[in-house]
Amino acid sequence: MVSLFYLCDLFGVAVFAITGALMAGRKAMDLFGVLVVALVTALGGGTLRDVILGLHPVSWIRDDTYIAVVVFATLGTVLWVRLTRPIPEKALLIADAFGLAVFTVIGTEVTLRQQVPLSTAVIMGVMTGVAGGVIRDIICNDIPLIFHKEIYATPCILGSLTYLGLNRLELAPELVTGTAMLVVLLIRLAAIRWHFALPRMQLLDRNR
Amino acid sequence: MVSLFYLCDLFGVAVFAITGALMAGRKAMDLFGVLVVALVTALGGGTLRDVILGLHPVSWIRDDTYIAVVVFATLGTVLWVRLTRPIPEKALLIADAFGLAVFTVIGTEVTLRQQVPLSTAVIMGVMTGVAGGVIRDIICNDIPLIFHKEIYATPCILGSLTYLGLNRLELAPELVTGTAMLVVLLIRLAAIRWHFALPRMQLLDRNR
Amino acid sequence: MVSLFYLCDLFGVAVFAITGALMAGRKAMDLFGVLVVALVTALGGGTLRDVILGLHPVSWIRDDTYIAVVVFATLGTVLWVRLTRPIPEKALLIADAFGLAVFTVIGTEVTLRQQVPLSTAVIMGVMTGVAGGVIRDIICNDIPLIFHKEIYATPCILGSLTYLGLNRLELAPELVTGTAMLVVLLIRLAAIRWHFALPRMQLLDRNR
Repeated sequence: MVSLFYLCDLFGVAVFAITGALMAGRKAMDLFGVLVVALVTALGGGTLRDVILGLHPVSWIRDDTYIAVVVFATLGTVLWVRLTRPIPEKALLIADAFGLAVFTVIGTEVTLRQQVPLSTAVIMGVMTGVAGGVIRDIICNDIPLIFHKEIYATPCILGSLTYLGLNRLELAPELVTGTAMLVVLLIRLAAIRWHFALPRMQLLDRNR
Repeated sequence: MVSLFYLCDLFGVAVFAITGALMAGRKAMDLFGVLVVALVTALGGGTLRDVILGLHPVSWIRDDTYIAVVVFATLGTVLWVRLTRPIPEKALLIADAFGLAVFTVIGTEVTLRQQVPLSTAVIMGVMTGVAGGVIRDIICNDIPLIFHKEIYATPCILGSLTYLGLNRLELAPELVTGTAMLVVLLIRLAAIRWHFALPRMQLLDRNR
Repeated sequence: MVSLFYLCDLFGVAVFAITGALMAGRKAMDLFGVLVVALVTALGGGTLRDVILGLHPVSWIRDDTYIAVVVFATLGTVLWVRLTRPIPEKALLIADAFGLAVFTVIGTEVTLRQQVPLSTAVIMGVMTGVAGGVIRDIICNDIPLIFHKEIYATPCILGSLTYLGLNRLELAPELVTGTAMLVVLLIRLAAIRWHFALPRMQLLDRNR
């Protein structure tokens, strides 16, 4: 199980690194700039989670597999584009959805192990999933995906709750983790495909 | 005293959550997006303070009252607007001033307990007061209030110094805390009302 | 050696404080706003490094020399401009290059002491050098220098690798540190002077 958890974590790191590289590439950064953005995107959410939970050392500090995965994913993305052609914009959204699914559930799981209230686990799960991408979008001076019309935080909340619910039923951990990830992924992909949106709020009156 | 401190902290969390919700609502985010911004705004300053001071676990991790207060404040704001009408823009500024007052003084107080130099207590106090709002404004892609014409960091510095001064006099702690909060609040509200501003600096020559 | 290390650290703090003050001055902030930006720029990179490495307390928390250096550097910058004239834009770039050189090498050095993989030391070194400036530019709503045409992350990576390489050779620590700082500084200054740039990536196809 540790091993499956670890592989999932590395998979999330890889896909978020790809989204970071693509976003930095959209801004026409050079190779090392692309690498910096990929690193921040891929490792930002987990770092924030571990720092807030007081888990030291942060996962990638002692285990350089994480950095290696980011470097290879970034170089792979750059080479792929150089050898073929620019990746369509939608690929970034889809990779982001995979990373969101993996990191939200892993974040929920890691937090839950610290014997905290369930609401903390949900918040930290959503934060782990969302933070890397938000930092990426702010650094790249883009409108964060969390602002776009399609639901973004909602699939994470539902996936995190799914994890907590199935976890209570004492099912096999692989099943719990996998189902919760699928919930996030499918709802988010459906939201992208069919433009699911919740009603928008207009809470401030700019005319007064 | 612990209890009064705790209530003040929760009050600061509630008003900052309201400002986060209002700001996210200005950007016409959906309900969960509004909730995410409210959480970051309300808990960001205190989290940064505790992480920098090495205080683990961060206050809201084990005590879900904090998250509950944010959720209720956010839902209350959303419902209020839905049932009545959009809140005038100035309400955000006033709620922000209350949060600023409470968090600056609490931040000074918590830091001082760590036996650090007084200047550290002032810096950490100002940071605790200011950080949540700055993160809110950056995420919402708005010009941070700290940039607006009216003084913003100044009331925090004065309030933090007031706390340190009165604390030396060994007055009742409630009196020290309350007076310092009032100093921040009144100066900031006066600054909003009468557009207090310090002279602006122009330190870079853009023409050379 | 500790003493030289400490002096270098304070020098980096001072020059980054100056860049923060200049950038805040470009935005015509008032004195205390300028001070806040100077503090965040000067102490941000080292704080992030220490928090991620789990080093408590963060360096400037117990030793108020750091805050004093920031305050004096900021006041000095403001007074200089008031008594003479606005500083040419290029001065900010040059001060930033000095800070980058010092903080990248110090960040590499501090991280290496934690017995971590070499790749972690490089990443943390670059992050320590780059983070304060990125936060400064984001707060001031400016395009981060890391985005400009001239190479920015590249000199840091080369300087950090130089440190690791010379460190292996067991040369005198002052020589290792000094040479690595010079590598970052000279490459970055040359990049500013002659507009060195790596090829830009265009990884996303916006038309599909």
